[in-house]
Amino acid sequence: MIDETLHQTVRVDLGERAYDIVIGPGVLAETGTYLATLAPGTRCAVVTDENVAALHLDAVRASLSGAGFEPGTLVLPAGEATKDFGHLRQTVEALLDARLERGDLVVALGGGVIGDLTGFAAAVTRRGMGFVQIPTSLLAQVDSSVGGKTGINAPQGKNLVGAFYQPRIVIADTAVLDTLPVREFRAGYAEVAKYGLINDAPFFSWLEDNLDAITAGGPARTQAIAASCRAKAAIVARDEREAGERALLNLGHTFGHALEGITGYRSDVLVHGEGVAIGLVLAHAFSARMNLCSPDDVKRVTAHLETAGLPTDLTPVRAHVPDADALMDFIAQDKKVSRGALTFILTRGIGEAFIADDVPASEVRAFLQQMLES
Amino acid sequence: MIDETLHQTVRVDLGERAYDIVIGPGVLAETGTYLATLAPGTRCAVVTDENVAALHLDAVRASLSGAGFEPGTLVLPAGEATKDFGHLRQTVEALLDARLERGDLVVALGGGVIGDLTGFAAAVTRRGMGFVQIPTSLLAQVDSSVGGKTGINAPQGKNLVGAFYQPRIVIADTAVLDTLPVREFRAGYAEVAKYGLINDAPFFSWLEDNLDAITAGGPARTQAIAASCRAKAAIVARDEREAGERALLNLGHTFGHALEGITGYRSDVLVHGEGVAIGLVLAHAFSARMNLCSPDDVKRVTAHLETAGLPTDLTPVRAHVPDADALMDFIAQDKKVSRGALTFILTRGIGEAFIADDVPASEVRAFLQQMLES
Repeated sequence: MIDETLHQTVRVDLGERAYDIVIGPGVLAETGTYLATLAPGTRCAVVTDENVAALHLDAVRASLSGAGFEPGTLVLPAGEATKDFGHLRQTVEALLDARLERGDLVVALGGGVIGDLTGFAAAVTRRGMGFVQIPTSLLAQVDSSVGGKTGINAPQGKNLVGAFYQPRIVIADTAVLDTLPVREFRAGYAEVAKYGLINDAPFFSWLEDNLDAITAGGPARTQAIAASCRAKAAIVARDEREAGERALLNLGHTFGHALEGITGYRSDVLVHGEGVAIGLVLAHAFSARMNLCSPDDVKRVTAHLETAGLPTDLTPVRAHVPDADALMDFIAQDKKVSRGALTFILTRGIGEAFIADDVPASEVRAFLQQMLES
Repeated sequence: MIDETLHQTVRVDLGERAYDIVIGPGVLAETGTYLATLAPGTRCAVVTDENVAALHLDAVRASLSGAGFEPGTLVLPAGEATKDFGHLRQTVEALLDARLERGDLVVALGGGVIGDLTGFAAAVTRRGMGFVQIPTSLLAQVDSSVGGKTGINAPQGKNLVGAFYQPRIVIADTAVLDTLPVREFRAGYAEVAKYGLINDAPFFSWLEDNLDAITAGGPARTQAIAASCRAKAAIVARDEREAGERALLNLGHTFGHALEGITGYRSDVLVHGEGVAIGLVLAHAFSARMNLCSPDDVKRVTAHLETAGLPTDLTPVRAHVPDADALMDFIAQDKKVSRGALTFILTRGIGEAFIADDVPASEVRAFLQQMLES
């Protein structure tokens, strides 16, 4: 049995689409119990990738079998390239071939790629099946497990095709993060830090004090993940479909997406969380340039992300960026552009981010030019 | 200007997703005015098929240009085969290439295939863009224009992939129906008759008395379409996501879909409305066999659909049906199956349809066997 004292449950309060995120070491082995309680008498299928399958699929299958499920399994290639139309189709057709019905459960076992793709497949198969997430990366546990954004990439950009679709439960096992490559754990940490930077300065301070304990695992890690989920859940509950406030969650992401885009989403060059880390620094530095926040805040953000082992300047991508205009092209294609005006999340300091919908493109371009030359 | 006295507007009451269906001769030429009023300052794109483009695209483009739009256009092949993953992808990527933003409008100009495909593309592009329907077939005007079901077909069956996604306005021009092949007009009429058969016996009687006037065009046609939209809207408003009552709209469709499936969706053999017509007769005949409705009702339904030029028995499909078991396989794959039990819409008489969720498969099989032998 799992030790309940080590666990936290975060409720994502979305009315009839509300759901729980259970967080703690060992919860993955209780998957079958959770699902049998949630939806008795249903069938299920597990979608995962080759890497995660090797590490955790047996445990999930054993737990499901123990609860009376006979899950079908689809194992996809690992990596961002899987988030495309071809694999969406493959996943949808596998669910149909398994003759799963509307009330049955589609379980995503994996990181953000598997969660986003599988959630989208669950959303559109039979116009909506039950969806369960078992996020196995730190990034997926603190970001994509909350808020219901699912989707795939298009040649025109990342996450441009998808649906808002909420899971029925999220099972976030903090112990599985010990199996992550250190680079991937660090990348996920950028999103944890982001929640402090958006609107919770005390949380950012706590992170500065507890980084080693979070990395080591144990209660501090569970606490950091639960606090992150709670922070995102609060914003999402107020703005499920990203009509306003939810855009705050894009702090660091407009720059980050552009960097990912210009490097062709090559994970050997830059993974999402690394793009976010650089983007967080750029968002603060640009805010300082606009005299919105103090240069000391930029230094503090940079120092903490550096300590966490994350990139904080354009060094990793410089070889892929011909000039500032090339980056501006990617920024203009980003879906956070509204009616031609540039919308950015800027900040007045640690924990004081805000939505600026009238940022002059010329200022952004000049800033990027300066960053590229420095 | 259009003559307002010839028009009807049906409000589909879905809270924040509520929208109007404007119905009457000549409304297509007012498309630009409707869209500029609905969403001033937006951009739009028109998705249509080769057949409809030849007949109506110039008029729609002229109307849009007159209202200040510069619409992009995507012309797809006509026919059911277009409702697949490949054309979904093509449509989504065309919308992204056109750099349309979330608030912009995607206009579906065509029949059910174009409406379903385009609506699904609008639902998933940037996780949801504005959607406008200009249905040009009778079937699309009275069926897919109400209720927000969008989607594509899968190898496993029809409409198995999609989304519930509501349009922002539907522009149903009753005069464009004069350009339809007679077979297609008749097929759409099966859905009109269905609304009377579900829960409105007086409407069915009115249809029996006014079939010629409806076919000829004019106020009777507008009235029949508006009454159909109103009937469907009332049911959809009470059950948007098909949790219960909405299943009534599937009267005739479980049999109909199976017939379409077994003939491989070959429109030369059977189009959707013809499958529905046969399905309506079968649903009444099966209900009579179960002693639920009178054999006289079966005769009356059969007579009216025959008068409307529709098939009412298995003659058109017999060559494609090896035996009753083959049909049962298609029925079991239909998404209206819930937890293994067969759910059918049966009836106690004209206008008295109900949901039966415990229909023995053996009875259905025996009934189909008898129909195939007769």
